[in-house]
Amino acid sequence: MKKTTPVSFANVEITNGFWAKKQELNRTVTLDAVRKQFENTGRFEAFKFNWTEDSDLPQPHIFWDSDIAKWMESAALILRKHSDPELEKKVDEIVDLIEKNQGEDGYFNIFFTVCEPEGRWQNRDAHELYCAGHLTEAAVAYYEATGKIKFLKLMCKYMDYIAKVFAEEKSTAFATPGHEEIELALIKLYRCTSDERFLKLARFFIDERGKETLPITAWCNTKYNQSHMPVREQRTAEGHSVRACYLYSGMADLAKEIEDEELLVACKALFDNIVQKRMYITGGVGSSHEGEAFTVDYDLQNDTAYAETCAAISLAMFANRLKEIDMDSKYADIVEKVYYNGFLSGISLDGKAFFYENPLEILKAEHNRHASVNKSRERFPITRRQEVFSCSCCPPNITRFIAAFGDYMYSFDAEMLYVHQFAQSNANFAIGSNSVSVVQKTEYPNDGKLTLTVTGLNGKKLAVRIPFWSVDTVIDKPYTVEKGYAVIDVTEDVFAVEIEFDMTPRIFAAHPLVFADNGRFALQSGPLVYCLESEDNGENLRDIAVLKNGTFTVHYDEFFGVNVITAKAQRTDVGDCNALYRPVEQMKTIETDARFIPYFGFANRSDCDMLVWFKLA
Amino acid sequence: MKKTTPVSFANVEITNGFWAKKQELNRTVTLDAVRKQFENTGRFEAFKFNWTEDSDLPQPHIFWDSDIAKWMESAALILRKHSDPELEKKVDEIVDLIEKNQGEDGYFNIFFTVCEPEGRWQNRDAHELYCAGHLTEAAVAYYEATGKIKFLKLMCKYMDYIAKVFAEEKSTAFATPGHEEIELALIKLYRCTSDERFLKLARFFIDERGKETLPITAWCNTKYNQSHMPVREQRTAEGHSVRACYLYSGMADLAKEIEDEELLVACKALFDNIVQKRMYITGGVGSSHEGEAFTVDYDLQNDTAYAETCAAISLAMFANRLKEIDMDSKYADIVEKVYYNGFLSGISLDGKAFFYENPLEILKAEHNRHASVNKSRERFPITRRQEVFSCSCCPPNITRFIAAFGDYMYSFDAEMLYVHQFAQSNANFAIGSNSVSVVQKTEYPNDGKLTLTVTGLNGKKLAVRIPFWSVDTVIDKPYTVEKGYAVIDVTEDVFAVEIEFDMTPRIFAAHPLVFADNGRFALQSGPLVYCLESEDNGENLRDIAVLKNGTFTVHYDEFFGVNVITAKAQRTDVGDCNALYRPVEQMKTIETDARFIPYFGFANRSDCDMLVWFKLA
Repeated sequence: MKKTTPVSFANVEITNGFWAKKQELNRTVTLDAVRKQFENTGRFEAFKFNWTEDSDLPQPHIFWDSDIAKWMESAALILRKHSDPELEKKVDEIVDLIEKNQGEDGYFNIFFTVCEPEGRWQNRDAHELYCAGHLTEAAVAYYEATGKIKFLKLMCKYMDYIAKVFAEEKSTAFATPGHEEIELALIKLYRCTSDERFLKLARFFIDERGKETLPITAWCNTKYNQSHMPVREQRTAEGHSVRACYLYSGMADLAKEIEDEELLVACKALFDNIVQKRMYITGGVGSSHEGEAFTVDYDLQNDTAYAETCAAISLAMFANRLKEIDMDSKYADIVEKVYYNGFLSGISLDGKAFFYENPLEILKAEHNRHASVNKSRERFPITRRQEVFSCSCCPPNITRFIAAFGDYMYSFDAEMLYVHQFAQSNANFAIGSNSVSVVQKTEYPNDGKLTLTVTGLNGKKLAVRIPFWSVDTVIDKPYTVEKGYAVIDVTEDVFAVEIEFDMTPRIFAAHPLVFADNGRFALQSGPLVYCLESEDNGENLRDIAVLKNGTFTVHYDEFFGVNVITAKAQRTDVGDCNALYRPVEQMKTIETDARFIPYFGFANRSDCDMLVWFKLA
Repeated sequence: MKKTTPVSFANVEITNGFWAKKQELNRTVTLDAVRKQFENTGRFEAFKFNWTEDSDLPQPHIFWDSDIAKWMESAALILRKHSDPELEKKVDEIVDLIEKNQGEDGYFNIFFTVCEPEGRWQNRDAHELYCAGHLTEAAVAYYEATGKIKFLKLMCKYMDYIAKVFAEEKSTAFATPGHEEIELALIKLYRCTSDERFLKLARFFIDERGKETLPITAWCNTKYNQSHMPVREQRTAEGHSVRACYLYSGMADLAKEIEDEELLVACKALFDNIVQKRMYITGGVGSSHEGEAFTVDYDLQNDTAYAETCAAISLAMFANRLKEIDMDSKYADIVEKVYYNGFLSGISLDGKAFFYENPLEILKAEHNRHASVNKSRERFPITRRQEVFSCSCCPPNITRFIAAFGDYMYSFDAEMLYVHQFAQSNANFAIGSNSVSVVQKTEYPNDGKLTLTVTGLNGKKLAVRIPFWSVDTVIDKPYTVEKGYAVIDVTEDVFAVEIEFDMTPRIFAAHPLVFADNGRFALQSGPLVYCLESEDNGENLRDIAVLKNGTFTVHYDEFFGVNVITAKAQRTDVGDCNALYRPVEQMKTIETDARFIPYFGFANRSDCDMLVWFKLA
């Protein structure tokens, strides 16, 4: 197993451009917006453990611990870059409450302490291990950001207790988590503490999965939480997509740590199944609202797409881990696809509101059709982002994912420095005893030009991902292509490479078995997938046919912060004829311009129709 | 109001060709197949009124009276043409049972006599008036076929009783039927008996509809049974589509009888709303399974299409009546569209099995997608015809509709004889004191040539419908076009006209607002809509792109009894690349032949995918 080491976001400064602005908005607006919503809904207050049936407080929900944990993790990631004593104080307050309310045995869970203490470890679907995992991720991040070790110790104690009841005593009503996440958290804890007990516990949960015969929730089948077979035998992505990709991320981590080739084979097959058969062009996964689940190959309906924001994040997490043990540009390609599209659509341009679901079409006529009958059978995603959800997993997942962009940019082994993602940035880190710095100068994703300057890498190699969409890439140094990376010999101590990626707007087709997209096409420029909105293009977007041989006009748009694209197109002119059906020769067309905006920016101006997959003429 | 008189099927012999074969199959196979199913399910036995809770008999259902009534009506229509003492005896037996079990007051209803006598006239949705109407239609048909008056008298007595309790005493729990049908039946009874009381009662039900404030079934809204406003104010087709079109048929009949212009205006608007915005290209209506209902304009989803066979029949009934007071070819065009497509698909080619629902696409991958999730939200029509349904309204509606084809062919006024439908046939009837005969020689719909020979019409005019699909019609006599009819002066006592309709296979497009069909096209030749089946074309029919400028090869197919069509087409060749998305330039195509079969013949060979709306290349 050939392994590489990722560079931490801590060593990378995004200095300007698209992601710098997103991170600034995240820090100054979104984190606080999420905090306020969590305060208003009683999530912070719940950590005081003072809810009773007679109190006026809202009853804590089984996953509130994880909501706050992700918020704390986001705060930690931000604190690592920007001192903010007030924010740090807020986190410390929660840590103190955790300390105060943690059981003697190490157990910490709000719901199963104050609401249903008799239910501890009884219900596999009650998110206890999931909450423990997220709190652990937060504790690691907070320790790494501040050097404060209290939170980390509390979570180590909790994990020791979990190891005792699950792995040793086996005194719990179930053997593995109903919602996976703890596996990857435990490996993160192991990497932070070097304490092998946590690696062992992660391995226990992964090894046991799919072997047990303990009851699961009645309403779901064993695929729902990937318990249908031992994980090493799994080859198709099944069930709840966030659970799936968190599990797969943990599997990839474990494969790396224990050099488990069987796990790697499973991870590779699962990844290929997702990206070759079960992923929207935006990087969204989990096409069905029912079970928030993967369904069957090529089932990628657009207007009912679930494609939860957290699922996109989890896919990027999985891809990012897998690349460290199977270096191939297809992994970082997916990370990029997610960051710029199916993830980023989850947050409004003003940073204050969120989508849980990310459809690829909004067709109000179809919503009306269902509303017109007594009992609608189909369910559609909402069409405007909301400031708060009762199930609020996505907002704090968004804040941590934006803050962690730097984590996804570089990795290295003894010979090679890999450049996976592009943004105006400075990175400084060590490879062995060498100090290395990498400076990226670029206006990416609005321009394909990139100047990479690496220092301290003389005699080694630089491997720069050539994005799958860049048909015609220009690099000013000799290079070979290995698994999608341009491999360049570094011949000077300060070594500069000029690269130009091909950002030509390009029309994509889906595999013909994707029945929802057959006869329809999507526009992409660089990493960005585009869409049509009624706001720009009037009603009945499905009728717009982009001219096959027409030209595209590209210009930067301040509102979206990226380029927008205008294409020559036509639409049907029915004239004054009311015929429902007529010979095709009688159908007239009118020339029009189709105005495309970046997919991530849809639904930011009005509540209107939207379409990714258009037709050609 | 300019009115015409229809020629009865009794005066028309379909002598050979497509409909002669269908009528023969109907008489020799289907009528008996339906009878057997009705016997096996206890429907005939139920007329003995000997069900009790303790009996082994199946409990009669509220609409069983109507099932048998439609079967009796079918038998009567067949008996009018073919003597069949055994069949007549069977009908007489039921008539005797009706006589025996009819109440003193005239009431006749199986369910509300033997199962729930306290429920008489209490539940608007319980089909009592609907059953009464169908029995009345059967009684009229049987009287006209055999001259036997008993059944007719029983029904007159029943209708007198209904007039008493509904119109005079108003002692019922509701004022108008929950399922309309009695209106048109009453007018049929009036036309047969010339007794104005029946016309008056029909008018009462039509006038009261939408005025009452009496309760309706809890689960449906007032649109469901067209009670949302007085019928003369209605302009859009709403609710349960069979109920709607039966009501509209009654409205058209009443408009004609009392020369009610307001009713005519409503009928015309309702018809236009249906055919311009709410009808499948097959003539199917009622796109939603929920409420078997019309939904909203342009909502014509293909794979979930409900398009009940009875609804298509009811639309043809409505169109056929409306033409007698607003002569325009658009009405007979719809009758033809229904007969050859959305109705005829309701019965298997062997005459023994039936579709209740008539989708325009079968896409197993979409069924699998829904089956893969725990609680499927979408509901799909069945993919094979069945021999019996628990709700069995369609089969005996099919038998009477096939037997009645001759009813739809001709009508006349003092100046003009209209030819609406085409089939090898002889007709003999009187216009005033003139004996008229019309002979059609044609292989329609397999050939567009038609020789019409009319005798006894010298000095008058012949008006022959030019079907909307016949772009280039050739007629060997001078003619003018009036409302879609070729009007020809008849200049000899035996007058022959040669006509050739344009049967060129032609590609149709839907109005661009039909979002389900946008970018897709349908093939029609003559009155027949065609479809692709996987049986001929392999999997993934949506990927087949018919070449815009390709040629069509037409040849007669014995199995379907009509022409089948082969078109030059292409489909995607993905080669050995597994990419889910790729630049369109990289998509290769392979040439193929697309084999089209008549829509009505789908699902007769195997359980496979089917597609009406294909794409072009």
